[in-house]
Amino acid sequence: MRVPSYAEQTPTFASGHSSPDDMLKRSLARIDEREPEVKAFVHLARERALREAEEATRRWHEGKPRSPIDGLVVAVKDIIETEDMPTGQGSPIWTGFETRRDAASVQALREAGAIILGKTATTEFAATEQNAPTANPHDPRRTPGGSSSGSAAAVGAGMVPVALGSQVVGSTLRPASYCGCIGFKPSYGTLNRSGTYDHLSQSCVGLFGQTLEDIWAVAQAIATRVGGDPGERPLTGPETLPAARAPKRVAVLETAGWAKATPGAVEAFEAELARLAAHGVEVVHRTMDGAVERLEEALSGAFPLTTRINAWEMRWPLAGYVRSHPEGVSAAMRRRLVEAEAMTPADYAAALEDRTHVREIFADTLSRFDGAVALAATGAAPLGLGYTGDPVMNVPASLLGVPAISLPLLEDQGLPLGLQVMGLAGEDAALMGLAAWRWTL
Amino acid sequence: MRVPSYAEQTPTFASGHSSPDDMLKRSLARIDEREPEVKAFVHLARERALREAEEATRRWHEGKPRSPIDGLVVAVKDIIETEDMPTGQGSPIWTGFETRRDAASVQALREAGAIILGKTATTEFAATEQNAPTANPHDPRRTPGGSSSGSAAAVGAGMVPVALGSQVVGSTLRPASYCGCIGFKPSYGTLNRSGTYDHLSQSCVGLFGQTLEDIWAVAQAIATRVGGDPGERPLTGPETLPAARAPKRVAVLETAGWAKATPGAVEAFEAELARLAAHGVEVVHRTMDGAVERLEEALSGAFPLTTRINAWEMRWPLAGYVRSHPEGVSAAMRRRLVEAEAMTPADYAAALEDRTHVREIFADTLSRFDGAVALAATGAAPLGLGYTGDPVMNVPASLLGVPAISLPLLEDQGLPLGLQVMGLAGEDAALMGLAAWRWTL
Repeated sequence: MRVPSYAEQTPTFASGHSSPDDMLKRSLARIDEREPEVKAFVHLARERALREAEEATRRWHEGKPRSPIDGLVVAVKDIIETEDMPTGQGSPIWTGFETRRDAASVQALREAGAIILGKTATTEFAATEQNAPTANPHDPRRTPGGSSSGSAAAVGAGMVPVALGSQVVGSTLRPASYCGCIGFKPSYGTLNRSGTYDHLSQSCVGLFGQTLEDIWAVAQAIATRVGGDPGERPLTGPETLPAARAPKRVAVLETAGWAKATPGAVEAFEAELARLAAHGVEVVHRTMDGAVERLEEALSGAFPLTTRINAWEMRWPLAGYVRSHPEGVSAAMRRRLVEAEAMTPADYAAALEDRTHVREIFADTLSRFDGAVALAATGAAPLGLGYTGDPVMNVPASLLGVPAISLPLLEDQGLPLGLQVMGLAGEDAALMGLAAWRWTL
Repeated sequence: MRVPSYAEQTPTFASGHSSPDDMLKRSLARIDEREPEVKAFVHLARERALREAEEATRRWHEGKPRSPIDGLVVAVKDIIETEDMPTGQGSPIWTGFETRRDAASVQALREAGAIILGKTATTEFAATEQNAPTANPHDPRRTPGGSSSGSAAAVGAGMVPVALGSQVVGSTLRPASYCGCIGFKPSYGTLNRSGTYDHLSQSCVGLFGQTLEDIWAVAQAIATRVGGDPGERPLTGPETLPAARAPKRVAVLETAGWAKATPGAVEAFEAELARLAAHGVEVVHRTMDGAVERLEEALSGAFPLTTRINAWEMRWPLAGYVRSHPEGVSAAMRRRLVEAEAMTPADYAAALEDRTHVREIFADTLSRFDGAVALAATGAAPLGLGYTGDPVMNVPASLLGVPAISLPLLEDQGLPLGLQVMGLAGEDAALMGLAAWRWTL
């Protein structure tokens, strides 16, 4: 069933046939219905949301909405600062922590009239350890993925139309794939993540949505008001979703994840490639093009390289936490600290050089294509709530700093699986156009 | 009077002739004597410091210091997070705010055994509005400069040997010049500022010290433990101060500040240039070299360019503060927000391009020199405590992201004035060698 975008519904707001107030109440009803099982939220701001939905409703009635997303309901990952709700980072050390301010993305969305309905569960420090009981909305025995577990689950369950998360390895596209919603990781730095406990050099604000239109409108609302990360070029492009754009030529990226893909995922991806070819797209595999093969080889070490970079960048604050709260840090985070402490600043500088080199190869290769396609996850969400699944398919876009979108168009074992599309750094609007074309195919 | 470095004193620690405990008590006595007039501190952690000094004393006795700076007393600017002291950012909105963690620099210094004695006064959000009563240690009727007011004053008054500050425009070198201590702004990104309320794209950790040896040892203690900003190359160089290195050829940079320099400052700087020439250094002025003239021209618009970049980057969090705490934001910050709100993301992207262009001209020109020299301030500290003085002389190094050091070697009106030396980005160790040569001339 096709979900209408927010922009499609706003014409009814002026006439009073519908309203932001109605939409919020639909979200709250859906939360009452699904949340006891899904457990996506760690905090809800019902009272403030109800008040703000009334105000947005009045603005639309008066023909004076603050923006095209005035009244849109958004949930935000619990590493993102909110003036009215604590920010707990999925860590017992941070439970109940009040930040006294909104993060840049939240400030921008409130200015645009959006309603910040709640905070969603995250793994510890947006990494791998899952302390939250969040379940996959399609099968409560399965993980929603992570680290943006609650944001993906809330959108996948239809509780909110849009949610904010983050991605440094696979924290947006993997849970989007598992939960059957759209996930968007923009080019590095293009959406301002200031005021987020998310300082790593590959971290991005990630967006979850039921439609590409909503995701793009929210990204634009952020970029036009608070830009990108300090010193980085902000997201560019039109205010509404770029027009669908049929690709002529796409590169297939198996990446190191291919060897781990389930038989169902392999089958679904191959059927997708056949479908693209049937629509006139030249689908170029590593066996057909030396440059793609060279890129695949360059990406073969992406996961350990990402792990080293992230480990060093987490030496702060982990070493401090282990000293001050010896019981408050998971074994997984302690292992990461051990890896960091075996590194020197020179090792880190060398890892950055390696990353730059892979980025150059990607940019060089992709300049001859309209985009790249890959699986967004190795298969359907695994059983169990403790392990959030393998992010290997999401490492390349994170390491490369390029835009990537997961579209819930495939299936594995009768469960959602995402098709991942990737583009060149800074060309997010072009990639959205490609995704829009595939979405409506 | 030449001040001994920490490394010069540590041999007496093993023998028991002196100790970190003695040194801390000397700091505390000096604070008791000077602080009622200077008012450098907003918080002191006396109990913890005394306990840690005892522990450091024992480690030196046992021949097991944690590092060459084990027991060194350090004060930190009140925008830098500390687990045991609130972080107030010089703003009534943030008074008493507890961050639950140490910033990266503080974590590294504690691991090295350094004693974090207190938090020092800052202007509001490390910008221009002075809410603190901090006075210049050389004349209490005069400003200590800002924004790192308390850090400069504490070192200048001899209350601590080293203090941490920050610089985005002129917040380290100007107060160092006014307070008669050494100031060091490293190359952009080379010292990790994570956990600091200091997110702008030109911001750096700044260091104040009584000796170059102490400043360099502290910078190395940070860089080797927590590196630089995520994604940036950390500070490199030897563990102890690089050897003095006589320059063959230096560029003189008047910059836009020259027109504002006091007669005393002009006289002092020209005497300095004559002294350098007398020591065999080729001193190259804009009138003598087309490339230097081109650089001076490129730098002529540095101040408005910096102001635009900073304004846009402060739209968050200022717009949120003005909404949530209408009485808590100064008129100066509100004016900055007005400037930001007149800009678009494209204006900001264009300003970044302009900055990149000036950086290329500087790198190209300076590659033919051993360094550049300039005044560190337009003159002695101005009278009055409300205005922190003109940062115009410090804008170039901040905009360029290059290392700069202020040496308290000049005088204006019988008060301290700094000689500024600047180098190429990433060549901090080479610049320290040049400063060491000039220091002992």
